[in-house]
Amino acid sequence: MATVEELHKTIAELREKLECESRKVQEMKGSIGIKRQTIAKMSAEVVDSNPYSRLMALKRMGIVDNYEKIRDFSIAVVGVGGVGSVTAEMLTRCGIGKLLLFDYDKVELANMNRLFYQPHQAGLSKVEAAEKTLREINPDVEFEVYNYNITTVDNFDHFMDRIRQGGKEKGHPVDLVLSCVDNFEARMAINTACNELGQSWFESGVSENAVSGHIQFIVPGDTSCFACAPPLVVATHTDEKTLKREGVCAASLPTTMAVVAGFLVQNVLKYLLGFGDVSYYLGYNALQDFFPTMRMKPNPQCDDSHCRRQQELFQAREAAKPKLDVQQKDVELAVVHDDNEWSIEIVSETTDEEARAAEGDKPELTEGVTVAYTKPSAQVSDPSELVSATELSLDDLMKQMQSL
Amino acid sequence: MATVEELHKTIAELREKLECESRKVQEMKGSIGIKRQTIAKMSAEVVDSNPYSRLMALKRMGIVDNYEKIRDFSIAVVGVGGVGSVTAEMLTRCGIGKLLLFDYDKVELANMNRLFYQPHQAGLSKVEAAEKTLREINPDVEFEVYNYNITTVDNFDHFMDRIRQGGKEKGHPVDLVLSCVDNFEARMAINTACNELGQSWFESGVSENAVSGHIQFIVPGDTSCFACAPPLVVATHTDEKTLKREGVCAASLPTTMAVVAGFLVQNVLKYLLGFGDVSYYLGYNALQDFFPTMRMKPNPQCDDSHCRRQQELFQAREAAKPKLDVQQKDVELAVVHDDNEWSIEIVSETTDEEARAAEGDKPELTEGVTVAYTKPSAQVSDPSELVSATELSLDDLMKQMQSL
Repeated sequence: MATVEELHKTIAELREKLECESRKVQEMKGSIGIKRQTIAKMSAEVVDSNPYSRLMALKRMGIVDNYEKIRDFSIAVVGVGGVGSVTAEMLTRCGIGKLLLFDYDKVELANMNRLFYQPHQAGLSKVEAAEKTLREINPDVEFEVYNYNITTVDNFDHFMDRIRQGGKEKGHPVDLVLSCVDNFEARMAINTACNELGQSWFESGVSENAVSGHIQFIVPGDTSCFACAPPLVVATHTDEKTLKREGVCAASLPTTMAVVAGFLVQNVLKYLLGFGDVSYYLGYNALQDFFPTMRMKPNPQCDDSHCRRQQELFQAREAAKPKLDVQQKDVELAVVHDDNEWSIEIVSETTDEEARAAEGDKPELTEGVTVAYTKPSAQVSDPSELVSATELSLDDLMKQMQSL
Repeated sequence: MATVEELHKTIAELREKLECESRKVQEMKGSIGIKRQTIAKMSAEVVDSNPYSRLMALKRMGIVDNYEKIRDFSIAVVGVGGVGSVTAEMLTRCGIGKLLLFDYDKVELANMNRLFYQPHQAGLSKVEAAEKTLREINPDVEFEVYNYNITTVDNFDHFMDRIRQGGKEKGHPVDLVLSCVDNFEARMAINTACNELGQSWFESGVSENAVSGHIQFIVPGDTSCFACAPPLVVATHTDEKTLKREGVCAASLPTTMAVVAGFLVQNVLKYLLGFGDVSYYLGYNALQDFFPTMRMKPNPQCDDSHCRRQQELFQAREAAKPKLDVQQKDVELAVVHDDNEWSIEIVSETTDEEARAAEGDKPELTEGVTVAYTKPSAQVSDPSELVSATELSLDDLMKQMQSL
């Protein structure tokens, strides 16, 4: 049995330990404990404590008519890696209404050469780590996160359901789907879902050598879908997993990924809030700071039956629009080609010369695989000689692909 | 005097409280306690635990010859706000040798619409908050941070000294200075320091309406400096503080700032590691996804005597270079104009039509002040008609400016 003296000693020791632990808690709270309060209504008031003042100033600057409308929108981000995580952070900081995040990967130290994740998050699932950080940044945003692979049968059905029902308003669809994945299988899954649902989406990508990237806006029926002119890997039904080699990984840079995420979210904002012009395709060649743009019409022989159905619906909607006056109609009719009912063509702003300049040294790859972007080997001396419009038919492209 | 029973009760209570606090500490450690260890030598090994594997892969992809050289470089970032903080984070994640950060601002909730800072950092100095986060992201980077305004006399001398001596190797200068400030006074201070020291630097900026930005590479003596063709506010010696109005702030977007930071660091990497082509000026018009480029030669009548001296030094270095063979020399001589010894001109890839298209609604501003970028009001229908080279002399520009 302890003496009273011993008991007092124990109490003193415990008090000291408690004080020590409490101090630690306070210190840590200093770095993670202070939470931003939720804000019921976006205000334009110019005070240091208002996280929305610089966004609401877009109204005063004449750029956006109704910035607070951002809260009505819901966006699904598929893949929260180098591009997707920064995309989600930008949307969160812009005060988007709701985000649905899909990924099945874990944070690794090997991801630390890109923005967003931090070393202490290594081992956590990406969606879990992302949600925690994003909620701390802006507690006004609503989140749904799914730690699964959208390409398996069960998950795909659930994914489709969340696109159909995941809007800000109960039972409504999301406003956009953003593809930030790193493989063709997942892109095709998103494409299939969006074609079936008639859901507009943005595709994004960064090259294996880290110095090129692109974004593409896909409106089912109106623009080319991902299956209308499929990449070789998809067209030849190659299993991407067989292309990976032990001890080899793709290169990546935080710069290229942040630029692609910036282009992506900027065009999302333009689309949702109705300002500027939305780019249908915007490329980024980092070696030469060259930015190709183009627009691809859909392929009436697309493999995806839902794409073909969306094309019919789109044409019917266009036909149902109020008739043009006679003069306008003449101009419109003049450009219709009889042998090409849908006027399928790729309108490129990139010349052959530029395309050649963008070719160069290629990394060693498994047989049958080519890189989407290569290192330019030559440079054009006079940039004024560069730009003129060229038109490549989808047939020509298909022939080129088949000859590979 | 407490009874033995009461003492036991106190001990039980204290034990419970201690356990509770210890649990909190453990939980918090889960999110902030795990630190990444320093790494003595960059490795290309493809394992999840290697934070440099995706960067070292740039060598295998044929983009960079010697990526590990990044550790030899030291960069000063002036201003760690919306652009500067993301710039510093990219460089940190790329494994830069050393960063010197200069800013005198505090983190506010009003900064939360841009990347990097988090609500719990509100109230901390920006350089202090940035250093803590960046060290956690990559403990291999060396930091020097200065919480002061570089434009005051004493601080300016210290700033100059750190540019001159802040290199990775003791006593050597930094390799680059990056201007990420939001006012002309600070830009002019950086310009003055870099002209005196012959220090190459990058200038960056984002427009007040948040939808345009640019980067510019300035090599004293070789390219136009910031004083060679000064903005109106600088040329008219206007005090910028008098232009600010109560209750009005500039707009900003995380997208535009991340794109500008991405362009900036990408060109820094190209310059330091010797790949691709460094852009001397790269603009970003977000409304139309238009990217103007140009190069400005220095002004022999520049107000800054150090700029004029650097121009003489540059010409002397050029003249001392090995002579060209006769045929090349003839071509070279053919473009020299007698009345324009230094061939001062602005070579723009932007046409008058594009310039007009980029003009539009202007926000209400104090008399005498114009915006650097405006909202485009019209769009060009056929992009192939757009690009041809135009040349505007500096004299023409000066005349235009004086007529305002």
